[in-house]
Amino acid sequence: MSAAARLRRRDEGAEIIVFERSKYVSFANCGLPYYVGGEIEDPAKLLLHTPHTLKAALNLDVRINSEVTAIDPGAHIVQVANTETGEAYTLTYDHLILSPGALASRPPIDGLDSPRVHTLRTVDDALALREASGTRAIVLGAGFIGIEAAEALAARGFETHLLELAEHVLPPLEVEMATLVTQELRGLGVHVHVGVAAQSITRGDDHDSVTLSDGTELDADLIVLSTGVRPDTTFAEVAGIETSRGYILVDEHGRTSADDVYAVGDGTIGRDHDRPVALAGPANRGGRLVADAIADAEHSEQTARPIPSPQGTAIVRIGSLTAAMTGANRQTLDASGIQYFTVHTHANQHAGYFPGAQPVHILMHVGAGGQILGAQAVGADGVDRRIDVIVTAMRAGLKATDLIDLDLAYAPPYGQAKDPVNQTGMVAHNVLIGGLVLTGPDALTEDMPVLDVRTPGEYAAGHMPNSLNIPHTQLRDRLGEVQAWVDESVGDQPFVVMCAAGVRSWIGYRIVRHAGFNVTMLSGGIQTLRAWLGERADAVLVTGEG
Amino acid sequence: MSAAARLRRRDEGAEIIVFERSKYVSFANCGLPYYVGGEIEDPAKLLLHTPHTLKAALNLDVRINSEVTAIDPGAHIVQVANTETGEAYTLTYDHLILSPGALASRPPIDGLDSPRVHTLRTVDDALALREASGTRAIVLGAGFIGIEAAEALAARGFETHLLELAEHVLPPLEVEMATLVTQELRGLGVHVHVGVAAQSITRGDDHDSVTLSDGTELDADLIVLSTGVRPDTTFAEVAGIETSRGYILVDEHGRTSADDVYAVGDGTIGRDHDRPVALAGPANRGGRLVADAIADAEHSEQTARPIPSPQGTAIVRIGSLTAAMTGANRQTLDASGIQYFTVHTHANQHAGYFPGAQPVHILMHVGAGGQILGAQAVGADGVDRRIDVIVTAMRAGLKATDLIDLDLAYAPPYGQAKDPVNQTGMVAHNVLIGGLVLTGPDALTEDMPVLDVRTPGEYAAGHMPNSLNIPHTQLRDRLGEVQAWVDESVGDQPFVVMCAAGVRSWIGYRIVRHAGFNVTMLSGGIQTLRAWLGERADAVLVTGEG
Repeated sequence: MSAAARLRRRDEGAEIIVFERSKYVSFANCGLPYYVGGEIEDPAKLLLHTPHTLKAALNLDVRINSEVTAIDPGAHIVQVANTETGEAYTLTYDHLILSPGALASRPPIDGLDSPRVHTLRTVDDALALREASGTRAIVLGAGFIGIEAAEALAARGFETHLLELAEHVLPPLEVEMATLVTQELRGLGVHVHVGVAAQSITRGDDHDSVTLSDGTELDADLIVLSTGVRPDTTFAEVAGIETSRGYILVDEHGRTSADDVYAVGDGTIGRDHDRPVALAGPANRGGRLVADAIADAEHSEQTARPIPSPQGTAIVRIGSLTAAMTGANRQTLDASGIQYFTVHTHANQHAGYFPGAQPVHILMHVGAGGQILGAQAVGADGVDRRIDVIVTAMRAGLKATDLIDLDLAYAPPYGQAKDPVNQTGMVAHNVLIGGLVLTGPDALTEDMPVLDVRTPGEYAAGHMPNSLNIPHTQLRDRLGEVQAWVDESVGDQPFVVMCAAGVRSWIGYRIVRHAGFNVTMLSGGIQTLRAWLGERADAVLVTGEG
Repeated sequence: MSAAARLRRRDEGAEIIVFERSKYVSFANCGLPYYVGGEIEDPAKLLLHTPHTLKAALNLDVRINSEVTAIDPGAHIVQVANTETGEAYTLTYDHLILSPGALASRPPIDGLDSPRVHTLRTVDDALALREASGTRAIVLGAGFIGIEAAEALAARGFETHLLELAEHVLPPLEVEMATLVTQELRGLGVHVHVGVAAQSITRGDDHDSVTLSDGTELDADLIVLSTGVRPDTTFAEVAGIETSRGYILVDEHGRTSADDVYAVGDGTIGRDHDRPVALAGPANRGGRLVADAIADAEHSEQTARPIPSPQGTAIVRIGSLTAAMTGANRQTLDASGIQYFTVHTHANQHAGYFPGAQPVHILMHVGAGGQILGAQAVGADGVDRRIDVIVTAMRAGLKATDLIDLDLAYAPPYGQAKDPVNQTGMVAHNVLIGGLVLTGPDALTEDMPVLDVRTPGEYAAGHMPNSLNIPHTQLRDRLGEVQAWVDESVGDQPFVVMCAAGVRSWIGYRIVRHAGFNVTMLSGGIQTLRAWLGERADAVLVTGEG
């Protein structure tokens, strides 16, 4: 619809026909979970347009219940079947835009065809889930849709279990961010199971039973399948249009391998990209650019702007929390062999003295040359804004150090004179100029010597096993104790300075480094470490004055 | 304090002495109005540090009640007087950083020395205002501080009058944005007077009387002077340090004309800049960079990064509204002679089908080559985020068209698949490729012919005098009526297509342009026009079916 609407605005004279297999056109895909949960009350809100409104406003000929069953790219012909009447006909085209989207992927689970198993891709899916009765729900897959579905069902009063095969929910998030999401989900009453899959579903009269890979058996009145999507492109493959792993291959103007055939959206992948991106923003904006490419090809006004590489920005609400990400994560960076380091900050979203200050937990991967490779943020407020600033910086090719200089909007209700994004850039800058050596939570082992510069009370509440506690305000006067500790139990190896969030340890790090010690600093302090450890935190951390 | 703290982190061995004339160090300047209003309850919150905490954490020698009374840059000596005891002494320095800040400017108003006249620059000012009794307040000057003070006093129950000499509140804002702020202020109970100044203040026993330039007389128990600031730099001028209009001239590393003397903050101006920027963010970040410049000069580790040119980003909360701006406004652009156009959008901050959708009113000035020259935004939600994205884009040198491609965070509670910033870029792109010619509200005169494509009901509620109303959905079928109207009453001149917000008029514009008519489109529709007209709206717009 984005392509068709733009094409009309570019070319009032064009004949534009839109085929839609279902009976809904231009519905609010991303809004479906909120209808299931009841936050969106009126199902009419999910339908953004009808064939009638699109005809009136944009002179589009929208044909619902119409499936394109075959394409003959050579002859420029499509074959269309009415899914209700069976009526079939052919039509010729000058330009054809394919926007087939994706289907829910169906993992090999016995009994997945139970009528109690739902997906959440269409308006009809959402209507069915909203009307579904029962008290127990299982959601298979803790990606974006799975998390939104689990929250929605828990809000409706279902005893809800959320299953994820990966080691943590929202697998694209780093574990030290995902832990915060898991905690919030549990606070919402969702039972989170990670590292497990559903193995089989047994239908019963009253309910189904799901057997998990760890042997657990759970009863469910309702099962939501949200384990990912696969492109719905068989009709294009049959027509000889080039695909890769099922995704239609497109160039930077959305052109497929067939003349005058374009494709956009979840069922496509760029020729230069390794990963498909099934997200609404790139699909919407891509549709507009494909329309521009066609209009420009027809009217030779100029060369259309290329469809940009997707940045992989995503955001999700979990209760009162927001989690967002953009760019690469540890897994893709490690696979690519790029040299990088990671910084963690926990600065408040606005001035600490203004009511309601809360941390925005930011993680940023920075290349050895200062490139911003990816970023993630989790918090109660201001997360979307900080990720969008980094998205913009990344698109523009700014370096991590450039984030320091951004003159971001500041007043006490809105930010800090040094915004969390500025501060994240400052930490990266300290590393890049050699003033700071970080140890990530991934590299901290239980045997490493740690200088913990928090207060004794904080220290007693949980610290690393091999620690010396000297508050940062006393460190200059107690360097002799540090020396004795190093002589006795540290030796030549570096020790790690840590605090709660990375602010006091930065002061402490500089003090002991100036005194000649071989030191690193724990990135993000114990806030990051606890989240990294997740459920292992209580086993690893030692309590008491030690 | 930003410079001193950074310098300590860069150089643990340095002797760092901080002189502060008042008895408070590192207080929350920007928080003062919120303490006056009661939103910040505890005055201790305003004090971020004390000499004791700064000594403990950063080994800083902070001397309060200590005024630097003279500098001898040649001999590298400062003369210091204790403001309480009168004790005076001299000290030598290797490097000197001046951060004198600014004082409230004092316009030539008779009686301004009344004890009922307050400023709001210091903790003592805030304490005095919080304790002030009475029922009637007058705030002189509707800049950021004036607006915050007026809201605070109105919230405390004062009958509050806010006076502004310029034609609208928040003079750096464009009038079509400022009108929204004025409306919000009036909704909060503040009496807003624009285009007037206080001429004299007459002291009474019980209250003061303020006579305005239009002859009005207002009684007040409390008067807040917030008509701007002037640099507090006489001591530097006396020492022979170069200044311009009272501001200490600095280079990109904060160096003044005197060897080893640096300056930062509200009392400075860059040698390459025409306007001082008295805002917290640039001052804070500048302090950090001056410390880097000194540390690098001492230790030759590398060349410090330069202090960036300020972008002039500012944000203010008014009741439930936020207003923000960055870059140049119409006044500075017109003065500079740059060719530019202005786009206005009113897209919702998040998906319209998700509860709580509200418009972010965005205005962006775009150069003929597509440069983003400045932007402003007003709305109830999401304003800070959109301005920060544009701030980042401007710092990076992105063009308006590049805003289209930003892969900003989208989920229904957070944005739109085409974010308001994307959409603003799209409008600019349409103009830049020649697909759209805009008429700004500033160029629309009452005699111009207007094709109004809203519904008859919207049209009847207020339209331009010389209008033809054809809803956009009927336009293709009623082009004959347009032709007849043009023949009869428009002639060769272009007519202007308008709607409510610029979305339907864009469709209508393309339809009539394709039909061969000579047309432009009203930027931002009647939402922008009404705000532009402000109090003249009812006089200019015609109601009824016409």
